[in-house]
Amino acid sequence: MNTLIVYWHPEPASFNAAMLRTASRVLTAEGHEVQISDLHELAFNPVSGRHNFITTANPDYFKQQDEEAHAARHDGFAEDIHTERQKLAWCDLLIFQFPLWWSGMPAMMKGWVDRVFTCQHDDETKYRCEAAPCKGKRAMLSLTTGGPASQYSAGGPLGTMPEVLGPIHKGMLALAGFQVLEPFVAYQPACLCEHGRIALLEQYTHRLRGLEQETAIPLPSLCN
Amino acid sequence: MNTLIVYWHPEPASFNAAMLRTASRVLTAEGHEVQISDLHELAFNPVSGRHNFITTANPDYFKQQDEEAHAARHDGFAEDIHTERQKLAWCDLLIFQFPLWWSGMPAMMKGWVDRVFTCQHDDETKYRCEAAPCKGKRAMLSLTTGGPASQYSAGGPLGTMPEVLGPIHKGMLALAGFQVLEPFVAYQPACLCEHGRIALLEQYTHRLRGLEQETAIPLPSLCN
Repeated sequence: MNTLIVYWHPEPASFNAAMLRTASRVLTAEGHEVQISDLHELAFNPVSGRHNFITTANPDYFKQQDEEAHAARHDGFAEDIHTERQKLAWCDLLIFQFPLWWSGMPAMMKGWVDRVFTCQHDDETKYRCEAAPCKGKRAMLSLTTGGPASQYSAGGPLGTMPEVLGPIHKGMLALAGFQVLEPFVAYQPACLCEHGRIALLEQYTHRLRGLEQETAIPLPSLCN
Repeated sequence: MNTLIVYWHPEPASFNAAMLRTASRVLTAEGHEVQISDLHELAFNPVSGRHNFITTANPDYFKQQDEEAHAARHDGFAEDIHTERQKLAWCDLLIFQFPLWWSGMPAMMKGWVDRVFTCQHDDETKYRCEAAPCKGKRAMLSLTTGGPASQYSAGGPLGTMPEVLGPIHKGMLALAGFQVLEPFVAYQPACLCEHGRIALLEQYTHRLRGLEQETAIPLPSLCN
C-alpha cells in the first residue's frame, strides 16, 4: 500500500508532527511504502494562478480547469505541481495530517488540493466518474482540534464532526474519485497530559495497522 | 453600513469580479461606505506562521492562538495583518466574494481568515461569546459554483448548499461572533449566456439593496 501523507503544521514539535511520525513509522513497519509532503518544509505555494502552468490554453482569460486539462495533455504543469502529481499518481492511500482551523483545512493544505487535484478531462461528467483522477485510491483525514469532542454535538453550534468534514469528504475527496475512510480525529491534544497524548498515539497506531482492511464510508454516488 | 468586501479570483474578467464591482457600486449608491481587500492584487500571503507577528510570546513552541492573544495586547501583528484587522474592526458587514473550489474557500481566502480572524482572548469561552472579536457585525458569503444548482440536492453527492457552507457559517463566521446572512450563490455562471449573467447580477443588485434590513440565519448559540 503506497501511502502519501500530506502534512502541514507551523510548529515542528506539534502533536500533528507526532501523528505524522507515528503514521510513517507504523505504516513502514507494516511493510507499506510511505512518502511525505511536508508543506511547511517544502514552503509550498498554496496560491493558484498562471504560475501553475508552463503551457497556456487561453492567454486572454484564465480558467484554471481549462488550463489544467490543457496542461495534462501537454505536460504543462509547473515543477512543484508536477512533483506532487507524481506522488499522488503513485499512492494507493492519501492521508491528510492537519490541525482543523475554523472548521476546515488550513490555507496551506487547501492550496495543495486547489493546485494538485487537477482536472484531467474537459468533460466534467467523465472527470467526476469513471475517469476521475483518483479513482481506485483511498483517502483519510487525520486531524487535531482545539476544542473538545463535546463541542461537536448534534444540533450544537459547530455541528457534528461528520457535518464539519462533510464538504471535504464529499466535495473534495469523493469528487476527485477517492474512496473515503473514516477520519481519525484527535480532540484537543493541547489539553492532554503526556499520558493522554501517548494513549491517543496508541489509538492512532492501532487504527493505522488495520487501515489496509478498512472499508470506506458509504457516500452518495457521483456517477449516476 | 461600513462594508468590507474580501475578494479573490485569479482572473480579473471573471464573473466574481463582476459581482465585486456590482456590490461596490450598489452599496455605495445606497449610501454605504465600501472597502475592498482584493487578495490577488494585494498578493496577500495566506500562510500562517511566526511572520504573522512582530512580537513573540513563546520562542520555544509556536501556538498561533497564544501568539495572537499576546500580539493583541502588545500591538504585535505584522503589517499586512494589522492593515486587514483595521478594516475588519471598521466594518459592520463583511462580504466574502469567491469561487467555490472543492466545496470550500480557495486557499487564498481561507488564509486571510486563518491570519486575520485573530484570537484576542486567552479565555476561549469569552472569545467565542460576549467578547468574540466580530460580535455585533454581520457577514455574508457571495460565491460562484462550477456546477448547476441540481448538484446540490438533498441526499445528493455534494450535499445541499446549506450543508456545504455549514462549516463556514458555523465554525468560522458565527464562531468569530458574526451574525450570518443568507449566502448569495451564483450557480454555474460560466455556462450562462450574456443575458443570463446580467439577470444574475440584477438579482444580486436587488439582494444588496435590501441587505441592511435583512435578518440573520438562525444558528445554534455559541454562548450557553
